[in-house]
This record gives sequence, structure tokens and C-alpha cells, in this order.
Amino acid sequence: MKSWVMRRKTGTLTVDDYALVDVDPPAAPGPGELRVRTRFFALDPYLSRYMKTWQGDTPLWSEGKVNGRTVAEVIESNADGFKPGDTVLVTARWQPENVVKAASAMLIDPEIDPPSLVLGILGASGRTAWVGYELAEPKAGETLLVSAASGPVGSVVGQLAKRHGLKAIGIAGGAEKCAYVESLGFDACLDHRLPDLAGRLASVAPQGVDIVFENVGQTGLDAGLSAINEKGRIMLCGLAQHYNDERPMELHHFRALLYRQVRLQGFRTADYLDLYPKADAELRAGIREGWLQYSEVLIDGLENAAASYLAMLRGEGIGKRLIRLP
Amino acid sequence: MKSWVMRRKTGTLTVDDYALVDVDPPAAPGPGELRVRTRFFALDPYLSRYMKTWQGDTPLWSEGKVNGRTVAEVIESNADGFKPGDTVLVTARWQPENVVKAASAMLIDPEIDPPSLVLGILGASGRTAWVGYELAEPKAGETLLVSAASGPVGSVVGQLAKRHGLKAIGIAGGAEKCAYVESLGFDACLDHRLPDLAGRLASVAPQGVDIVFENVGQTGLDAGLSAINEKGRIMLCGLAQHYNDERPMELHHFRALLYRQVRLQGFRTADYLDLYPKADAELRAGIREGWLQYSEVLIDGLENAAASYLAMLRGEGIGKRLIRLP
Repeated sequence: MKSWVMRRKTGTLTVDDYALVDVDPPAAPGPGELRVRTRFFALDPYLSRYMKTWQGDTPLWSEGKVNGRTVAEVIESNADGFKPGDTVLVTARWQPENVVKAASAMLIDPEIDPPSLVLGILGASGRTAWVGYELAEPKAGETLLVSAASGPVGSVVGQLAKRHGLKAIGIAGGAEKCAYVESLGFDACLDHRLPDLAGRLASVAPQGVDIVFENVGQTGLDAGLSAINEKGRIMLCGLAQHYNDERPMELHHFRALLYRQVRLQGFRTADYLDLYPKADAELRAGIREGWLQYSEVLIDGLENAAASYLAMLRGEGIGKRLIRLP
Repeated sequence: MKSWVMRRKTGTLTVDDYALVDVDPPAAPGPGELRVRTRFFALDPYLSRYMKTWQGDTPLWSEGKVNGRTVAEVIESNADGFKPGDTVLVTARWQPENVVKAASAMLIDPEIDPPSLVLGILGASGRTAWVGYELAEPKAGETLLVSAASGPVGSVVGQLAKRHGLKAIGIAGGAEKCAYVESLGFDACLDHRLPDLAGRLASVAPQGVDIVFENVGQTGLDAGLSAINEKGRIMLCGLAQHYNDERPMELHHFRALLYRQVRLQGFRTADYLDLYPKADAELRAGIREGWLQYSEVLIDGLENAAASYLAMLRGEGIGKRLIRLP
């Protein structure tokens, strides 16, 4: 069986840092364990921190094994509550089969179709968008700016804002992504590859910005700070631009945090479990009622994982990227 | 009569930007006005923003007249509630006499002795310290880091922390200031002029830092971010290091805001008027009971204002700097 591993490194991630090696298939599951077959795994930006530091949530990372959020089918169960054929959400290695602890596996509601949605809009991405948006205390009539607006988090944030009567402005890389963002109902989308982002933001938001939902880093954040209104809120959700390098953040408009009495809040979605039921209910309703759109990019083949991961980090493609196994 | 004016400029403030010119003494007060004689005015760091941009709270700045918080004696009153001999807190030009609107003048409680304390510990400085400390939601046993710890705000923040059972670490410039900070009861004071501030912080706060009260800018803030604990709070009270230049903020540890779910809050004390009674009560009690110390530096002579102001910006001296007129 093939499995992705990494070598310990510092500096920028490259495709040479990953290797697809032969490993023994997993043994039979012990008590309280499941043997599962991978159907999809998510190319999540936050993984790149672990890929660089080998310090993830699980001890697995200490061995250089790449592992992430995975939708899998139970093949063999040695735990109550799970049977072969069940579809589960697990954290597992990037390989065709895994043995996982049942205690950390979650049965996926069969109504979620396709089940891969739990890796995106009906999972961490959608919940992160919903929770961060809620923590920003949005009010109808306000203006929200969100970066990585074509991505699985940013696209939801902007659509929630529009649904609740805010003005939504996105930032994305390139004309194609911006066209997609505007097709979702955003009032405007700014291409961060073009010059003078702050100037273009001022022209589409002459009233200023009340909420900045930041997924990327200094480019969008600095523009947001240049336009932020008094008592603005900045939700710091991700810093994708900075996961893969060591340089300091350079912010020309940092002073606005003081001068305009801004609150900047770094948050981790998992700290707000109590909000999940409300988040899930609204996200499912949004899909059912048609006002919430999403995009999934399914990439076939385990062997494409590393290159596709790095392409995602570079900002290529629109929507949530998943590797699909047969 | 002499009065301080400024020429419109950009870039770093220098003594050449100020001029002491001859002006007519003020006319008799109109209805609702007071003629007052300046006793003390405050060399407040926040003024430097207005000095650079000519965009202060009052339209006076648009004429290049320097004006700031002043303790004055009423000479002539054309308003109810004020009589000659009263001591008032006003915003006035840096000159021996002013005519001011009674509506924006505040009678100083005669129990406050000397009345200059309303320009420092019993005024904006003390209230700013108290309000920012309160907004940080401190808990006994936590660790607080405060920059400009020998200054009129920072010294109070650290003493409040010690009073309430927190560990207090100060940052100040030079051995003399640090000795003063430690004499106030701080657990430690770090000299930001010596190398490796972050390393020295780690050694005096191996348990990390829960609250950063930032008065100065990137030097202390970056050190604070390097040590900040999960769910830490950063109160952004001032950026004195950055008022007088245009360079961007450069933060090596900005990512900690995300990774450790930190809240950073820029605040303006005047937005929390409802907290003033509680602030004033505790600050007065602290002085009366002897656990709250302060330092005032009185500089005689209107002609010394500009040079003393710039010296304050450079971080010279300990305590609140005031110009005293005869």
C-alpha cells in the first residue's frame, strides 16, 4: 500500500518534501478501533503549519506521516456503534486504508449527499465561516471584507453577509476567481494581483469597512486596515500567505487598530462547539433553499495529493479541494 | 503674549517645527466663556499625532496652534457655575492665557491636591490605565506585560495588576527607569535597549504572558506576542514608537494572534465614561492608602515646552511631564 510521508525541513514547502512510499497495510482493528477505506481527504490550508513544524494535533505527525480530515468507509469494526458500510469522518493518514479509534470517528448523516460535503461547506470550512462571522457581531447595513473570497470559507462568509443585509466585498487572486465571487452575489470582488488594492477598496467601499474576515495575510489585512471604520472587527481566521515562509508581517496601517478602536480576534472554530448546531442548521438550510452556493474540486488519485496541495497553497483553483480515491 | 505654533509638515517632528510667537492676549470672554490663566499643561504623547497631521479634536489645530490638556485658573467668568479663582481642566493653547468655552471646562475637585494630578494619575493617564486594565479582563494568577512601564499609564497598569494578584512585568528604556519600575513592586522590568527582549521575557515569564498592555509599539508588542498564551488579551493603548514616523509595523510573531486565539483591542478611554467613577474611586484610594505611586515632572517656563515635548517622545525622564507657568 502507498502512503505519503514528509521529511523534516524548514523553509518553504516544495514537492521534494513529500514522498509516496510503500507501507504495510493496516492490521486488523484492535478493541475500540475501525479499519476504514479512504474515499476523500481534504487539502486543508492549516495542514501546512504541521507539514512545516511536524507539530500537529496528533502524535502521528511526529513520525513524518501526513494526516488530515478524511471521509472513509468502515470495512471492519471492532467498536460498538459502527458497522461495515458506514461512512465516517476521521483524521487519518493520506493512504488508501487506515485503522482509527472509533472514539474520534464521527458517523456522517446519510442525508448529507455527497458525504464529501462534511469536508467543506457542511464541515470545518462552513462552520469556520459561520462561527467567525457570528463572532464579528455583524449588523445589517454594515460592510464586510473577506479575503480568499472564492475559497470554501470566504465564499460562505460573503454569502452569509449578503443573506443578512450586509454589503460584501471579496478579495481573490485573478479575474476568474473574482468572476466566481461576484456570481455568488458579492457586491464586488477585488483582484489582489492588481496594483493599489487599498485604493480600489476605497472606491467600492467609500463608506469604509466594518468587518474584515481575514484568511490570508498582510496583503488583504493591510487594505482592510486602511478602510476600517471606528469600532471595526477583524476576525483572524487564517494566514495562508504566511504559513509557508518565515518573514515578519509588515503592516502599513497597523495604527488603525488603535486610532479606530478596532478589535482583532484570532479564533479557532473548535472552541465554539456550542455554536455548531446553529451553524449546521443555517448552512444546510442555505443549500436546501438555494441561497448558499459552494464549489468542490475532486482530484482523483492518491499520487496527486502533494502537487495538488502545493497548488492549493499557491492559490490555484476555486473551491474546496479534495483527493478522491476509488 | 507668547504662544506656540507649528508649521505644516510631514516626517519626523523636530524642534524646528515649533515656534514661540507673539500673539494678542485674549479678548474679554463672550457669553458662556471663561478667561483663564494657565497653571500647568500636559506633554501628552497622543498630541504628536495632531502635531504631525493637524487633525486634532478641535478646529484649533487647523490653524497650527498647539493645544492640549491644561489646568488653569479662572480670571474672568461670563458663564454660570464658574467664578474667578476656580481651578479648571480645559483644552487650551500652549500660552499663558486663553478664552475657553465653559461647557468644555471642568471644575477640579479642591480635594485633589496638587490639581496637576488631574493631568496624570487622577486624569487621563490613570483612567486610561484603569480602563484598559479592566477591559483586559484580568484574573488573579495571570501574568501581565506592560510597556512604557515607568510612564504615567504603564506604571499604574502594573501597580493595579500587583494589587489584584497578577504577576506584573514591565518594559522600559534603561537601567534607571527599570529600577524605578521595580521599586513600584513589579516582579521584573526588562530594558528594551538591551538585546534579545523576547529571550529575557521568556526567562522571567516561563509560564507565558496572558495580558499585554501596549503603549509603545512593535518592539514590546513583538516580544509580548512571542510569549502570549492561548486566549491572551492585548490592549492597544498607544503606539508612541510609531507616531513620529511613517514606516510599517514589522511583527515577527503576528501569527501568534491566530495560533493562540488572541484578542487585540484598540481602545479610546473616552468611550468608557461609565467606568470613570469606579476608576477614580480606586485610583484615589490607591494614593490615599499608599499602594499606588506616581511621578510628576514639572518643567518651568513656557519656552521649554517644545524641547521638553520632543524629549518626552524620545523616552527621556520618568513620570508625567507637565509645563508649569508662574
